[in-house]
Amino acid sequence: MLAPERILRLEDDRVVFLDQRRLPLEEIEVECRTAAEVADAIRTMVVRGAPAIGIAAAYGYALAAVRGEDMDAAEHVLRTSRPTAVNLGWALDEMRRDPSPAHARAIHDAEVARCRAMSAHAASLLAPNTRALTHCNAGGLATGGYGSAVGAILSAWEAGLVEHVWVDETRPLLQGARLTAWELETAGVPHAVIADSAAASLMASGEVDAVLTGADRIAANGDTANKIGTYSLAVLAAHHDIPFYVVAPSSTVDHSTTSGAGIPIEERDPAEVTPRFAARNPAFDVTPAALIRAIVTEHGAHTPPYADSLVGAVVSV
Amino acid sequence: MLAPERILRLEDDRVVFLDQRRLPLEEIEVECRTAAEVADAIRTMVVRGAPAIGIAAAYGYALAAVRGEDMDAAEHVLRTSRPTAVNLGWALDEMRRDPSPAHARAIHDAEVARCRAMSAHAASLLAPNTRALTHCNAGGLATGGYGSAVGAILSAWEAGLVEHVWVDETRPLLQGARLTAWELETAGVPHAVIADSAAASLMASGEVDAVLTGADRIAANGDTANKIGTYSLAVLAAHHDIPFYVVAPSSTVDHSTTSGAGIPIEERDPAEVTPRFAARNPAFDVTPAALIRAIVTEHGAHTPPYADSLVGAVVSV
Repeated sequence: MLAPERILRLEDDRVVFLDQRRLPLEEIEVECRTAAEVADAIRTMVVRGAPAIGIAAAYGYALAAVRGEDMDAAEHVLRTSRPTAVNLGWALDEMRRDPSPAHARAIHDAEVARCRAMSAHAASLLAPNTRALTHCNAGGLATGGYGSAVGAILSAWEAGLVEHVWVDETRPLLQGARLTAWELETAGVPHAVIADSAAASLMASGEVDAVLTGADRIAANGDTANKIGTYSLAVLAAHHDIPFYVVAPSSTVDHSTTSGAGIPIEERDPAEVTPRFAARNPAFDVTPAALIRAIVTEHGAHTPPYADSLVGAVVSV
Repeated sequence: MLAPERILRLEDDRVVFLDQRRLPLEEIEVECRTAAEVADAIRTMVVRGAPAIGIAAAYGYALAAVRGEDMDAAEHVLRTSRPTAVNLGWALDEMRRDPSPAHARAIHDAEVARCRAMSAHAASLLAPNTRALTHCNAGGLATGGYGSAVGAILSAWEAGLVEHVWVDETRPLLQGARLTAWELETAGVPHAVIADSAAASLMASGEVDAVLTGADRIAANGDTANKIGTYSLAVLAAHHDIPFYVVAPSSTVDHSTTSGAGIPIEERDPAEVTPRFAARNPAFDVTPAALIRAIVTEHGAHTPPYADSLVGAVVSV
């Protein structure tokens, strides 16, 4: 497992990221020396994954404070670097109370601790010999350490409950084929990458027992925004009567947004899909709560009706 | 529209293919001088699409006859070049009756004529201002001219019925992003390429009015094998109450296979998905008849129950 400080860390005068765009081909670090540079690393997906970009924003804010930057400007550039993950705003709200490096590092440590707790909870939902399917990367790279959905799979693997993992390659940026496969290979978990559109036929042939994904923002009613293709998997899982689980820390729950209709969906550069023709590139979709068997946070498994069960899904500092 | 003889043609001593692996970057021709070379072009997807590989096999067989090759060996190498499309076997059965170049060319001409007929039938099913979604390439490149599902879209576009076309990029080989987008651009039809997994969210937001795909083999009960991801779209279309149409010539209907369970599904090289990690690469999936609103051949729109309505879907020579 990748050490949290290898994924991202705050040093005296810089934030250092493992460049997730280059993995698994190269392990290169990117150094950011201002809040604006951190925001740029978030926008260009040097670092991605809702919890990880929350931590990145906390580090960027602490860096700005140390440097004596205009803190309103620093907050603004970080807060607007990407629209969908609520962790960005959550971490900045936290940091406004105490902009110290120690606080930012504590947020990072707490996210990793939440990952370990939620992973144990989620693993306990899986039956022996589970063939799990996951989408995008909800591993340590996405959370600053250990992972959410992939953390749950690792935790279940260690408990002898996982037989195989199907890894959606996750177009257009291939976070599954590049990052999740790399993490599972490192951990020694049997896996196979598939084209995103192959998931349905594996479900139909009885080769998928559970679907686990992370989340970028969970509305108060349980509607969940996550990487484009997640909603597709949720519909397919329901059609095949396969449980669909969301695994995410309480920092991803947005109690102030009542439903998925209120979650902003980022549209990214169409050239990520094809540089040659007209294209459309929504980066996220919203899975209605009705398609989610359970949302697992560090507090445990929340089940429908989520408007009630998610009330307690708050960050305990 | 690409001329049929530009897609593939039989000359005195060779079969010439437009290399579909290189499109749209380069328009390069590949020349095959033996049946084995034609089989190789089919296997490596220089030419692809069920009707087109049927025509290719017919040309390869005629070439073998002209050259005085061992005809049993020629038939065998062509028949086994790819397993799923039934057109390959159908065309070789036809050619055994008359291995002449004129017969092979007549098969090509007849497929294009069937495409025009089925496209007109399918277009008549679409409402004005249709925003259509299609998968893979079921255009002229796939059928030796005009196309099946893309032919229907072109026909409907000419009739003023199509507002926009969503083009699934179609991983792993990107036939949508490379071939269908190219064909639609050439025809001037408004379109946008999307990641395959984005189709569901466009359906949820009400931006898809109809899904049209081709087919590689249609069983007697209407179960339909087509490019991986087609089944996924059919489930999603049903969930969103969007009509799902299959458009294919009667040469794609396999009356001797009772259901989809009898259709062999090709597994291709996992390296097509990722060269770096373990992968699984089924090239096709099977859509159950129950998810298909209509199967449109040159004879018209066949509707459930297909065991009855497809009986007349035979090739009239």
